Amino acid sequence: MSLDPKIAARLKRTADGLVCAVVQERSTRDVLMVAWMNDEALELTLTTRKATYFSRSRRQLWVKGETSGHTQHVHEVRLDCDGDTLLLVVDQVDGACHTGDHTCFDADLLLG
Amino acid sequence: MSLDPKIAARLKRTADGLVCAVVQERSTRDVLMVAWMNDEALELTLTTRKATYFSRSRRQLWVKGETSGHTQHVHEVRLDCDGDTLLLVVDQVDGACHTGDHTCFDADLLLG
Repeated sequence: MSLDPKIAARLKRTADGLVCAVVQERSTRDVLMVAWMNDEALELTLTTRKATYFSRSRRQLWVKGETSGHTQHVHEVRLDCDGDTLLLVVDQVDGACHTGDHTCFDADLLLG
Repeated sequence: MSLDPKIAARLKRTADGLVCAVVQERSTRDVLMVAWMNDEALELTLTTRKATYFSRSRRQLWVKGETSGHTQHVHEVRLDCDGDTLLLVVDQVDGACHTGDHTCFDADLLLG
């Protein structure tokens, strides 16, 4: 199966074929993390409702929580006005960050 | 004035020298938009508390709302765990989106 051509036509991808994905928790509305998706990751996310990204360092698909168990069940996916960024609204199991923090933005406050 | 070297050392920039900035509204907790910053845009944002980005298409600094009046007063700036994404918490004047919508994610629901 491949991504719906009507959606694919609206995406504005990087030179690497990726779009940015901002991930927000449904219950708390915390911004949890930012990751990247190629067409296949988006298609898998839309059809399985398990947040699936493309790892830029490992150059492969990555189902969030596949090894850690910290999965994201996807409730909503939106595309922004210029087609290069997605917003995912998810239910997060445990911490979203690989450090164990709830969000990837918990640790480093530059201005408060 | 230039960006605090202790902050600059923690940034992991794209080949273009940019970091991603996710912008969240303080009152509603809506994710408003995503934009990009170079070191100068971040320095200006931290010191003036007026959200300032780097336009990738125009290759220049851009003070949000400078022409539209739809400014963002910055309350908080956080850096994520791998140093390539910022989270700005802002007070948004009127709509954040150039279309007039409140957020850049209002118009296009891919999965709900």
